[in-house]
Amino acid sequence: MKHESINFDQKFNAFSEQWKPKVIAEMNDYQFKVVKLEGDFIWHEHADTDETFIVIDGSLRIDFADGEVTVGKGEMFVVPKGTQHKPYAEKEVKVLLIEPRGVLNTGDGNTSDITAENDQWI
Amino acid sequence: MKHESINFDQKFNAFSEQWKPKVIAEMNDYQFKVVKLEGDFIWHEHADTDETFIVIDGSLRIDFADGEVTVGKGEMFVVPKGTQHKPYAEKEVKVLLIEPRGVLNTGDGNTSDITAENDQWI
Repeated sequence: MKHESINFDQKFNAFSEQWKPKVIAEMNDYQFKVVKLEGDFIWHEHADTDETFIVIDGSLRIDFADGEVTVGKGEMFVVPKGTQHKPYAEKEVKVLLIEPRGVLNTGDGNTSDITAENDQWI
Repeated sequence: MKHESINFDQKFNAFSEQWKPKVIAEMNDYQFKVVKLEGDFIWHEHADTDETFIVIDGSLRIDFADGEVTVGKGEMFVVPKGTQHKPYAEKEVKVLLIEPRGVLNTGDGNTSDITAENDQWI
């Protein structure tokens, strides 16, 4: 059987669109997704799950009702479930997201034209 | 409230021992653990869960009954549950492990003097 590692740079080089997470691996019922973010997203929350952001390249700011955090290259942050947050990036940032299968990028019940389709593998 | 990102290099610089995973974050009932590996580990498996390896620095080889995979810096690999595997590193490698809380490093029922204590935060 062939066992192959997953290379983040290779995955990021395979697409250019922003705000559309692409699944690269699964662990039990969780998914690893690469996404390019730039500019402002919407305020949203995930009532049932924490959400992990690992920055592969660039710098991500996550705003909260009571403050903000800046996550740089080689850093991670876990947004606790039920916490209103808004990702922002001044320049394009490359992020690895980890969260359960089926989570909507725009949060619970917030489907709109910026809601990304789930289970898009790359 | 203070929100702080977690810096991988900073965590790895805070300890030197090998084969002893240190928890740096939790997402729901999963843990993120940093670990330094060098040399050969034992063959083992986790019957109930997949296990994710992300290489932060260096190169990790994982041997399987039917082959092997090399995971370099900026790469990841998910070992499927129930799969016999043996991590190996020629030189020290810095790894981020992701797996459910409570998983033993030596696998199911394999406690020995190389079994690491769980829930060691850093």
